[in-house]
Amino acid sequence: MALYVHKYGGTSVGSTERIKHVAERVIKARQKGDDIVVVVSAMSGETNRLLALAHEVQERPNPREVDVLLSTGEQVTIALLAMALEAKGCPARSYTGAQVKIITDEAHTKARVERIDNEAIRADLAAGRVVIVAGFQGVTEAGDLTTLGRGGSDTTAVALAAALKADECLIFTDVDGVYTTDPRVEPRARRLERITFEEMLEMASLGSKVLQIRSVEFAGKYNVPLRVLSSFQEGEGTLITYEESEMEKAVISGIAFNRDEAKLTLEGVPDKPGIAHKILGPIAAANIEVDMIVQNVAGDATTDFTFTVHRNEFAKAMEILQKLCGELGAKAVTGDDKIVKVSVVGVGMRSHAGIASTMFETLAKEGINIRMISTSEIKISVVMDEKYLELAVRSLHEAFGLDKEPAA
Amino acid sequence: MALYVHKYGGTSVGSTERIKHVAERVIKARQKGDDIVVVVSAMSGETNRLLALAHEVQERPNPREVDVLLSTGEQVTIALLAMALEAKGCPARSYTGAQVKIITDEAHTKARVERIDNEAIRADLAAGRVVIVAGFQGVTEAGDLTTLGRGGSDTTAVALAAALKADECLIFTDVDGVYTTDPRVEPRARRLERITFEEMLEMASLGSKVLQIRSVEFAGKYNVPLRVLSSFQEGEGTLITYEESEMEKAVISGIAFNRDEAKLTLEGVPDKPGIAHKILGPIAAANIEVDMIVQNVAGDATTDFTFTVHRNEFAKAMEILQKLCGELGAKAVTGDDKIVKVSVVGVGMRSHAGIASTMFETLAKEGINIRMISTSEIKISVVMDEKYLELAVRSLHEAFGLDKEPAA
Repeated sequence: MALYVHKYGGTSVGSTERIKHVAERVIKARQKGDDIVVVVSAMSGETNRLLALAHEVQERPNPREVDVLLSTGEQVTIALLAMALEAKGCPARSYTGAQVKIITDEAHTKARVERIDNEAIRADLAAGRVVIVAGFQGVTEAGDLTTLGRGGSDTTAVALAAALKADECLIFTDVDGVYTTDPRVEPRARRLERITFEEMLEMASLGSKVLQIRSVEFAGKYNVPLRVLSSFQEGEGTLITYEESEMEKAVISGIAFNRDEAKLTLEGVPDKPGIAHKILGPIAAANIEVDMIVQNVAGDATTDFTFTVHRNEFAKAMEILQKLCGELGAKAVTGDDKIVKVSVVGVGMRSHAGIASTMFETLAKEGINIRMISTSEIKISVVMDEKYLELAVRSLHEAFGLDKEPAA
Repeated sequence: MALYVHKYGGTSVGSTERIKHVAERVIKARQKGDDIVVVVSAMSGETNRLLALAHEVQERPNPREVDVLLSTGEQVTIALLAMALEAKGCPARSYTGAQVKIITDEAHTKARVERIDNEAIRADLAAGRVVIVAGFQGVTEAGDLTTLGRGGSDTTAVALAAALKADECLIFTDVDGVYTTDPRVEPRARRLERITFEEMLEMASLGSKVLQIRSVEFAGKYNVPLRVLSSFQEGEGTLITYEESEMEKAVISGIAFNRDEAKLTLEGVPDKPGIAHKILGPIAAANIEVDMIVQNVAGDATTDFTFTVHRNEFAKAMEILQKLCGELGAKAVTGDDKIVKVSVVGVGMRSHAGIASTMFETLAKEGINIRMISTSEIKISVVMDEKYLELAVRSLHEAFGLDKEPAA
């Protein structure tokens, strides 16, 4: 007998009809003789409806009270799902985050899970019940309600799976797995049967928004096998685990990309220690998140300092750099918000030389000019003009043979 | 410095605009230097919306899960009211029933309050905060969420006022107090400045639906002065307390009535011990609530047994009596669902003879035929054809001088 944690997002529980459908799936899974714990989100639209009410009342609502308000969303879903299961003759019991208890720190609206008491859940499972837990929410040691931030239901599911030592944590979404790249850009994109936690982190942070990044980190840390699959159709989805010896040895697992980038350069900055901090300090102080950072030192004791930000923050970042230009004695500020980032990701890269050269060669053949390069152990990212995005993704997808099943 | 518990019902918090209005009232009350604890209901319509969702999922939803579902309604309101107060610069903190904790028994959907921990509330009041508590809900010793049944927010307010030894519990409603009778029937009906708990109980159970009866019982038991007043207009409302020596000594406080009654009679039942039980047993077993019961023993060792039920249950009750008629050797079953009950209520009745005769004389003068009579220490009820209701209420209102301020 195995123990599985299922997680159904807001779209999967968006109506009472869909909640009944989830109940059927849970019952089917249980008929194999396994124990099931289900984590659910608020019905789609509910969190936004509640936030709109809050904003009608207070411009910047008190985060403690926002959490009291928002945590009602999942509480509605757990009760309805418990009813749906019982209506079909399946014993079930619901728990709020506070009831479990899922103890978090006190960072309201973005709390972190500290520990989980799972006594009540274990007793219910032993009594033959399906246990339903409200995602996205917890409670502080002092008894204040907290929420884990957007996408936090994934984190709840993984944290529960870790605490209960579940065999697998199944994340049901509106996609049927993790793909080699976005099928809307490359129709030959292929669903991956497996992917490693590290690759998934790189894919997620690079724009494949299947899973919340914190839940993947959490799953990796506690070695909880994660499976992403569709709540609307049958299928095995994609399993996210640690690299195993018998694992399929693809060099590259996927091509990720991000259309929302903009790039800024401070040219000809006198190259002194601490210059990076002098530039990025004011950017961080303005709450602008920086993605890639590249610095080239030229021969003449000055440097060009380039970084990328979200396109929405481009104007704000330009303004800050223009002020800094004079202060730091730099030559000029340039920027471009018509760029994209394309990355190849794969743990196989570690042991294979030549990935970078294959990548650059492929792009060169297509006449694509590379504007920035950044690398990590399992990823190579390049920045290019946005008009090249589709061409780059498709040619790289083919060059690395991603449309073909890898050899065992 | 005094401590007041305010309670605002669903209509008073039915929109974010109204919640802001409640915040203003609370702030105004607090400016007098008093401590305020606020109990709120779910926004009007919300409880019914949630129940409709439940019924879409399960025909007879599990009561434990109904409570998980419904308790979200008040949780939304407490958060929004806390935000509204803070938006106006008034420190506030919200608590769910489980957070307070309001400990109840395990009777889901109609739980009874057993005790209240008020440590957190006291600490917040001492720190200068307004404390907002979700009405209608509590938690069992084992941590399961419970609700107190319809109108349970009044009970929450009274229970909190008792636990905190509050100076007064103010129930804000859509009426501006308790009236001598329904102003829609008798336009000269007058708002009472004071009324006793016992009178209020008789008025409430007889159809003046201002306050939930359990909350009045509770207030009486713990001697919590209750005040009913309007959330939409200024005014002192009506204070409900114990009879005091200096209290206005009206003989009769008000005229209550109930339009929803139906009456049934089993005629010529052989008068043996246990006959009442044999008749009412099957009625109770069918979950039909009985209001008045009257039995007359005639000279011929048979009796006419008459009782009243809610009109909706009339057909069901008639069917049961028809079956019993043969079994018990009774002569006939008769019934009438076009009757009403009119009652005069007043603690002054205890020490005044002649109330009944004034009442019967008044009705006789108007040609109103009395079909049943039932009395208690502070109330006389009569049943009559429904067409006489308005005439009876107005003539009794005048006969007992209820339109005039009583002499001190």
